[in-house]
Amino acid sequence: MNHQSNVRTHERLDDLQLNGLKIIQDPQGFCFGIDAVLLSHFIDVKKAKLAVEFGTGTGIIPLLLSERKAIEKILTFEVQEKVAHMARRSIELNQLEDRIQVIHDTLHHACNYMENGSADIVFSNPPYMAPHAAIKNPSDEKAISRHEILCTLEDVVRNAAQILKFRGAFFMIHRPTRLVDIITLCRQYKLEPKKIQMIQPYKDSPPNIFMIKCVKGGNPEMKVMPPLVVYEAKGQFSNRIYEIYSEAQITSFTERQG
Amino acid sequence: MNHQSNVRTHERLDDLQLNGLKIIQDPQGFCFGIDAVLLSHFIDVKKAKLAVEFGTGTGIIPLLLSERKAIEKILTFEVQEKVAHMARRSIELNQLEDRIQVIHDTLHHACNYMENGSADIVFSNPPYMAPHAAIKNPSDEKAISRHEILCTLEDVVRNAAQILKFRGAFFMIHRPTRLVDIITLCRQYKLEPKKIQMIQPYKDSPPNIFMIKCVKGGNPEMKVMPPLVVYEAKGQFSNRIYEIYSEAQITSFTERQG
Repeated sequence: MNHQSNVRTHERLDDLQLNGLKIIQDPQGFCFGIDAVLLSHFIDVKKAKLAVEFGTGTGIIPLLLSERKAIEKILTFEVQEKVAHMARRSIELNQLEDRIQVIHDTLHHACNYMENGSADIVFSNPPYMAPHAAIKNPSDEKAISRHEILCTLEDVVRNAAQILKFRGAFFMIHRPTRLVDIITLCRQYKLEPKKIQMIQPYKDSPPNIFMIKCVKGGNPEMKVMPPLVVYEAKGQFSNRIYEIYSEAQITSFTERQG
Repeated sequence: MNHQSNVRTHERLDDLQLNGLKIIQDPQGFCFGIDAVLLSHFIDVKKAKLAVEFGTGTGIIPLLLSERKAIEKILTFEVQEKVAHMARRSIELNQLEDRIQVIHDTLHHACNYMENGSADIVFSNPPYMAPHAAIKNPSDEKAISRHEILCTLEDVVRNAAQILKFRGAFFMIHRPTRLVDIITLCRQYKLEPKKIQMIQPYKDSPPNIFMIKCVKGGNPEMKVMPPLVVYEAKGQFSNRIYEIYSEAQITSFTERQG
């Protein structure tokens, strides 16, 4: 297949260094970041008939998860047409159309594409910013992916709860400032928070993102993991980050500035 | 004053090494631990007309806070008669009866001793274990201080919310397994969780206790602090612990095994 024919002039084709996986990225719009790699690593489910993602961006998380052969099917929703199209082209490039399907639609319509209670896992790297938060990114595409413009945190949680099966797992990465909102919403929708990991830039700095695993109908008992420290020193990633990237077999990466 | 006359045969008189403060402890029952020292350090309020504690044990936290002269009055509730009496004798030994009052009563009656909405701060190092949790300590005194036998987590939060004034602060130390219960209960009773710090034995181990600050009527926005690491290596406390003890001017300490 001629890879370049799938890539438009403003885009860039990156080699994920993972079993030959390729990804199309738009340097002016969407590049996947460390949060996507960490979230895919945090998803501790090996086997699933149906996995669903809300908001895929470049398609990075489904691509990374495609290495787990026992995850049979991944449906991912992307409300932005251009972004959905770019993710779809990356999936075609990797000949993964049978396993990963990009649906250009809002997550509010997720239940039109599957039965309620049918998904084994749902995951999301949703917009971090409240819609009223200061300065929106002037590019619409980035604004929509970073601010709760087209979907709120509650929309993500409610729709995840609806399509998940009993004992199915929900995974999300978000900002610690929203920890209380996330925990109370998840419990309200019967997605019991079971595991949390904070991610902090340096050993002594406060976390700036965190990951949460909830289980639909799970019993109350939270496990807080040791924090994940990103940098050993300025510009030098920690051994743990190298381990995670090497487990995912990714040798080059950029960071998304949320 | 003859210190020894206040100390019973099974008890022990310890010098807190803090402006001459002394504390009576019962090696078979109640000894204060590192969690009490960390919680008193976490209480970031310098000035208060009225501070209230639920369950004082040895009286350690009020004794440590007594160094902050702008905390004018501390009322502490202790439901166990023998323990309340021991704490009271420690306070008398230190001639702090004017500022610290030990009330031998349950926290359910807190509102009989003060107006609703009158306390500037409330703090508690409550029982960590659910009442149904496995093996209860055979000694009643320890069981009551460690298990939710005479008061539940919800009792602590509800009564704190009732006596706190608007914008007053609630501080608690507890187990991470209960994080979700604590966050949802606090928000339910309008004590908005604002700050959390995890405490972990080693750099790479999961936290086993955490501290939370809530503000009555506060706006939603959580600040997660960098975790506090207790040991640098086996048997060797971290520099941060030495700093905290030296800020509190405590030079000797034991650990409570929760």
